[in-house]
Amino acid sequence: MKVNLKHQLNDPNCKGVEILSIGSELLLGNIVNSNAQWISEELSSLGLNHFRQSTIGDNCERISKLIKEISSRSHLLITTGGLGPTPDDLTTEAIANSFNASLSEREYLWDGIKKKLSLSGSKLNNSSLKKQCFFPEDAQIINNPRGTAPGMIWEPIKGFTIMTFPGVPSEMKEMWKETAVDYIKNNFSDGFVFFSNTLKFSGIGESTLSEKIDNLLKLKNPTVAPYANLGEVKLRITARAKNELEARKIIKPIKEKLKKEFSEFIFGENDDDLSSVLINELIKRKESIVFAESCTGGLLSSSITKKSGASQVFKGSIISYSNELKQSLLNIPEFLIKKYGAVSEEVAQEMAINAKEKLNSDWSIAISGIAGPNGGSKEKPVGLVHIAISGPYNHLTNIKKIFSSTRNRIEIQRLSVNVCLNSLRLILLSTSK
Amino acid sequence: MKVNLKHQLNDPNCKGVEILSIGSELLLGNIVNSNAQWISEELSSLGLNHFRQSTIGDNCERISKLIKEISSRSHLLITTGGLGPTPDDLTTEAIANSFNASLSEREYLWDGIKKKLSLSGSKLNNSSLKKQCFFPEDAQIINNPRGTAPGMIWEPIKGFTIMTFPGVPSEMKEMWKETAVDYIKNNFSDGFVFFSNTLKFSGIGESTLSEKIDNLLKLKNPTVAPYANLGEVKLRITARAKNELEARKIIKPIKEKLKKEFSEFIFGENDDDLSSVLINELIKRKESIVFAESCTGGLLSSSITKKSGASQVFKGSIISYSNELKQSLLNIPEFLIKKYGAVSEEVAQEMAINAKEKLNSDWSIAISGIAGPNGGSKEKPVGLVHIAISGPYNHLTNIKKIFSSTRNRIEIQRLSVNVCLNSLRLILLSTSK
Repeated sequence: MKVNLKHQLNDPNCKGVEILSIGSELLLGNIVNSNAQWISEELSSLGLNHFRQSTIGDNCERISKLIKEISSRSHLLITTGGLGPTPDDLTTEAIANSFNASLSEREYLWDGIKKKLSLSGSKLNNSSLKKQCFFPEDAQIINNPRGTAPGMIWEPIKGFTIMTFPGVPSEMKEMWKETAVDYIKNNFSDGFVFFSNTLKFSGIGESTLSEKIDNLLKLKNPTVAPYANLGEVKLRITARAKNELEARKIIKPIKEKLKKEFSEFIFGENDDDLSSVLINELIKRKESIVFAESCTGGLLSSSITKKSGASQVFKGSIISYSNELKQSLLNIPEFLIKKYGAVSEEVAQEMAINAKEKLNSDWSIAISGIAGPNGGSKEKPVGLVHIAISGPYNHLTNIKKIFSSTRNRIEIQRLSVNVCLNSLRLILLSTSK
Repeated sequence: MKVNLKHQLNDPNCKGVEILSIGSELLLGNIVNSNAQWISEELSSLGLNHFRQSTIGDNCERISKLIKEISSRSHLLITTGGLGPTPDDLTTEAIANSFNASLSEREYLWDGIKKKLSLSGSKLNNSSLKKQCFFPEDAQIINNPRGTAPGMIWEPIKGFTIMTFPGVPSEMKEMWKETAVDYIKNNFSDGFVFFSNTLKFSGIGESTLSEKIDNLLKLKNPTVAPYANLGEVKLRITARAKNELEARKIIKPIKEKLKKEFSEFIFGENDDDLSSVLINELIKRKESIVFAESCTGGLLSSSITKKSGASQVFKGSIISYSNELKQSLLNIPEFLIKKYGAVSEEVAQEMAINAKEKLNSDWSIAISGIAGPNGGSKEKPVGLVHIAISGPYNHLTNIKKIFSSTRNRIEIQRLSVNVCLNSLRLILLSTSK
């Protein structure tokens, strides 16, 4: 979740990089600011001190004021948005205003735009489109291979550079890769790179883990930072070094220490998730899996089938949401449901055993619970979940979980799926072939 | 696409609302700032002048400095993040520092936290968790019904109020709805209210819809703003008026015009989604539904069962991911699969008919396709999906879709589910009881 940018200078007066996202659609909440995330990731992999992001609407005066403000505290500003032909596209004009600069036309850009537009068959409207050819005299143009609006690199005052990009993600990314990366490396890099490795945990909470590795969280190089999702915790280990090889060397001992200490909780690294780890483990073992789902209603199956490669191990499932289908599709005897209830160890176990047999697989997971908000009782509250795992050589595991009453229906379903996947992962570990 | 903040004042010195997102994970690009989008949407529906957003890392001095800066230009600040128990959670402390205020413990909060944690079975660690009970003396607490970290409403100086929320979206949203909406309405409204109605569209793209209602998008009161999600477009109609009744009157003619013009594309309003609309329609008709899923692998079932009330109409599904299970569970003849392939109109149709019969329901939807990235061929490319819907009185509908090759596996699965739900919705409409 939270990390100090310990690599970065802690002096709050240190000059760094900022991102400014321009567009009223962001302030209205029409779109999520995925550009800022993408650029942030790029900046951190380039090792730049990136301290702050801002978002502002399509208002020339406000944009100018903010850019002036940023120029006093940062040395590089990346802007996105507001470069297009509409009256709301004001970025270049506003930037020029901030520094009392005037804009002049670059004729060759106009030729380029005309060419692009005749290629794509759009109608030309000179007055609005021509706006995109005006830049400060001494600005360097960033070519836009995928659209009409170029960007610029401009140093309006000594020690402060602005790089402008369009708001359309595909155009921005292409221009970034083609022009910005090298420019930044040559002009703003201190010769060091940042490299990260992420360890993924299940079955342990963020605060418990953070407490246990309190000393690691204080390290400066590498830094260790926890992030939490529903039912999953990540630790990102980041090293600053002359090159990737050296960074890996710095990360290695910390990673090994963590792997040793938390072996049963660590299920993977980087892009791994519980589903992909489980699929890979089953592929290795050449074993298949099926599910019998009630309260998760397809979410467990879906968490596996969203992965490419699932078909190598996953054969299918029976979603027996009604008791009628528990009987007809999974042969659960009526008396069992009557005696113990559909949400019981007995029924979950029978579902697992029968699904494994009927769907002809090596492993099966059955799950029956009360996801709420209705259907709970004093004896069987919302959040009660019974899981049964059946496997080769008559393996059988029963798990009972009661999730907190603060959890809603979807969280109970997602946490249940997590327990299913992680429990089978641990069983496979302990019975490794 | 661009929209002017037409309701909002254009004076750049006008004081407004700001959002501050706190968390180094945002600056590192680890996560996208979906909280800022969500709050922006809420603020614009409340009609607040929201001019600016900032993002900053977990650095106490920097946070303090920025908050001081915001207090000089805005009258309301919404913060997210940094309220948890870890050493990097610094928001409350940093805010207090900005105004030289001290923090004191609220004992009743500690009792509440202990209670919550013992309920969910976590171990207590006083030192780190207790931090969450410290607030400025005169701050009002925002109860957190879904987590341990409360927020606060605090007016450190006259004319400037701060409201703090955790970074966990589910907690933030719940607290916002429970506390913030009324507080903002009572304290920051200018006597006018903003009232919105959202129409939800399926089966039409954002740009097509926008072009067709070009004139409506230019309106000033009510405003009409399009928002797009995967496979779904929303139009939000917002009126500014003395009261809700008057606002509804302003909205009504536009809404009726849209409903008339786009009747087949509009599936619902406000919080409706395709699943809930379908469940409600089936409840009304007292009809049940089952699914036979292949390429969506449980996602269709899950999209229904994530809704409370699903059990009134949904009986269950067969996820026949392997051809073996298509045969054994759904009685699809082997020759049919051999002759036409598993992804074919013939097989999808047979899956639907047999699922309806075997699972004993009024309706069934079957789906078989190639979600990719592997498994495609020239004749049957990735993105090809066959859907069959079987219903009462031998109703049968076959649908073939080829999703764009730019779509990834998960998008193909989600778009397929959308088509299934929307197609059945249209069938139910045309056969209304």
